[in-house]
Amino acid sequence: MKRFGIITLITDFGLVDPYLAMMKGVILSINDNARVVDISHDIMAGSIIQAAGMIRETFPFFPEGTVHVAVVDPGVGSDRRLIVLEAGDHLFVGPDNGIFWPVIADHRKTRIIHLTESRYFLPHVTHTFHGRDVFAPVAAHLSLGVDPAKMGPVIKDPVKLSSPRPHKIDDILYGQVMRVDNFGNLITNISNEDIESFLKKSKPIIHIGNLEIKKLDNIYSDVDKGEPLALIDSSNLLEIAVNFGRAAEYVGIDSGEIVGSAVNVRRYE
Amino acid sequence: MKRFGIITLITDFGLVDPYLAMMKGVILSINDNARVVDISHDIMAGSIIQAAGMIRETFPFFPEGTVHVAVVDPGVGSDRRLIVLEAGDHLFVGPDNGIFWPVIADHRKTRIIHLTESRYFLPHVTHTFHGRDVFAPVAAHLSLGVDPAKMGPVIKDPVKLSSPRPHKIDDILYGQVMRVDNFGNLITNISNEDIESFLKKSKPIIHIGNLEIKKLDNIYSDVDKGEPLALIDSSNLLEIAVNFGRAAEYVGIDSGEIVGSAVNVRRYE
Amino acid sequence: MKRFGIITLITDFGLVDPYLAMMKGVILSINDNARVVDISHDIMAGSIIQAAGMIRETFPFFPEGTVHVAVVDPGVGSDRRLIVLEAGDHLFVGPDNGIFWPVIADHRKTRIIHLTESRYFLPHVTHTFHGRDVFAPVAAHLSLGVDPAKMGPVIKDPVKLSSPRPHKIDDILYGQVMRVDNFGNLITNISNEDIESFLKKSKPIIHIGNLEIKKLDNIYSDVDKGEPLALIDSSNLLEIAVNFGRAAEYVGIDSGEIVGSAVNVRRYE
Repeated sequence: MKRFGIITLITDFGLVDPYLAMMKGVILSINDNARVVDISHDIMAGSIIQAAGMIRETFPFFPEGTVHVAVVDPGVGSDRRLIVLEAGDHLFVGPDNGIFWPVIADHRKTRIIHLTESRYFLPHVTHTFHGRDVFAPVAAHLSLGVDPAKMGPVIKDPVKLSSPRPHKIDDILYGQVMRVDNFGNLITNISNEDIESFLKKSKPIIHIGNLEIKKLDNIYSDVDKGEPLALIDSSNLLEIAVNFGRAAEYVGIDSGEIVGSAVNVRRYE
Repeated sequence: MKRFGIITLITDFGLVDPYLAMMKGVILSINDNARVVDISHDIMAGSIIQAAGMIRETFPFFPEGTVHVAVVDPGVGSDRRLIVLEAGDHLFVGPDNGIFWPVIADHRKTRIIHLTESRYFLPHVTHTFHGRDVFAPVAAHLSLGVDPAKMGPVIKDPVKLSSPRPHKIDDILYGQVMRVDNFGNLITNISNEDIESFLKKSKPIIHIGNLEIKKLDNIYSDVDKGEPLALIDSSNLLEIAVNFGRAAEYVGIDSGEIVGSAVNVRRYE
Repeated sequence: MKRFGIITLITDFGLVDPYLAMMKGVILSINDNARVVDISHDIMAGSIIQAAGMIRETFPFFPEGTVHVAVVDPGVGSDRRLIVLEAGDHLFVGPDNGIFWPVIADHRKTRIIHLTESRYFLPHVTHTFHGRDVFAPVAAHLSLGVDPAKMGPVIKDPVKLSSPRPHKIDDILYGQVMRVDNFGNLITNISNEDIESFLKKSKPIIHIGNLEIKKLDNIYSDVDKGEPLALIDSSNLLEIAVNFGRAAEYVGIDSGEIVGSAVNVRRYE
């Protein structure tokens, strides 16, 4: 696998604390040619499922050989393992807490290494910041071309993540809202493939909150300003939006309950 | 035009969503030596005028040959054109929605290309994310030295942006607040040149909200802590500030109405 | 001192304004190979003490020869000096307002240069943005290998910063909360060394707000979910936390008063 020195970071650290800068400093101290790219540091504290979804959505857009570091790690210091995953010509470094499970599940051929070789860590590993003391230096060494196999033994039993999957009961396709984006768009877990295999050639009726939408549009401006619509978004997922507006407020669900709220698709004709 | 592989990004994506990371991944997949610099991703959703002002303020500080990508694009997927602009030895990539109009208006010699050559785009262009599928790969190719002329035909009729300009009526110079910065300073659209040609050798009386200021100072500490002042800021614009305080709260205008609120300058003596 | 072209930035600019991007543009215009790393731009407006603490915590993780630029500068344009500091094989650029005092105090051998040679500045230096007009170009020149001694005379009387230090009265060790991190953890100014030399072989009783904790744990999961604990954190400081929770809310101190609130350690046995 080629390496270009590109390392991505996804954490729940926010941008106020010094933790992220420390990780970048450690990386550059080992590989001063590393290029670090921030995925997001605004993952909800401890939300493995949110980080896992974002890793799966973003990593394929990076070049082969990119090292992706994930530090959403509420069990830091406990006996959860630290791992490197090879999948799809990319490398992933983080805790074995399910954060990479969607990537593993998508790929037939993966290799997972349990990080045990402490010569790739900082000399002093604290109990509470493995992101800086283990993941950052491991990522830097990987970006220099070190073979993950040198870093520890292969394991076959990574921790799985159970994330909500859309399912069909009788003649209804049930899904849910996975996230609300910066524009107030509601991103669901129902993919274009889910919808096509459910609808066949029927037309859809989509329900969410107190809203009913009777077709799939292509672009926001297919409806008038202020009107709601449903479309397949740029990540191939069913999205509920409002042209020049915010679906998050439009659908009549409390903001605290909108992530996880139900989306149903039925057929007519 | 020399190219150093520097690409700036300005968007209204915020930092929570995966969209920005996808664009960076696409850029690095095409030019793994690209250096991506974030201008701001906190542009108000859909505010072309805010983004346009920030591009005009920031781009001259970057080296020649920098590629500036702007994705504030509420009309994504509609029939608005996608363009590359050459102006002042810089390149600009984004939607033809007026976002580059202030740059175009400032330069005598510009060239505008309508992006039609899809070989510079991602293989699959979605309806809702041209930032990732068109602008990012086009910017990466430009940063490698591709001539914009290869990317489509020249156009002469870019969309204009009407932004509020200061104007003189009778003996009053009227302007308005364009933005409130992180320190609560009020940045107006009145430039140093506007003021000098209006005042000649008179002294100014500046009004905003319930505040009257009778001179221009040079630095914040020209007045006591907690006192208001007016000065010409580092972007050559009239700014209302409070030394060790926040003018935004001081002037007695509702926070929801402060951007766009009136600033008047009169003469005395 | 080796230079790798790495420049870190810490400011109180936030991420909405164009100021930070202007600094990065200036740096890249002088050294187009510079790699700029953001430490934090969410320092509270004008909080020299917060920035000073973060610089001290983060800089040792960067490679030798890194140039660290700090722009928390409420006195911009006044007669405060602009300086370069050499300490611990790192370079620091910023206002002489105490922001580098913790670094100076930690090092026996330092050199401080008063920036007076304007050929290393932008041609036009404004009154209100020395970050862009002086610190950014100076940092870029330093990252190219320029000797700080060429930039002005050595000074011996840098401005000091008085920051709260833990102290022992009778049989009580008094400290305070310095910051609340993104996870609601309370980071104090009491170091592991302070505690060890105070406790000797006794056990600690830690008080903060309405909370009493009778031991030091190693990791968050040493206590049950939702339970509070005290530990020595990854920066070697006493930290109060709640496993899978937020100590900031748990301790019963108003959020506006939690930074600076008292933490006491006593002995038993």
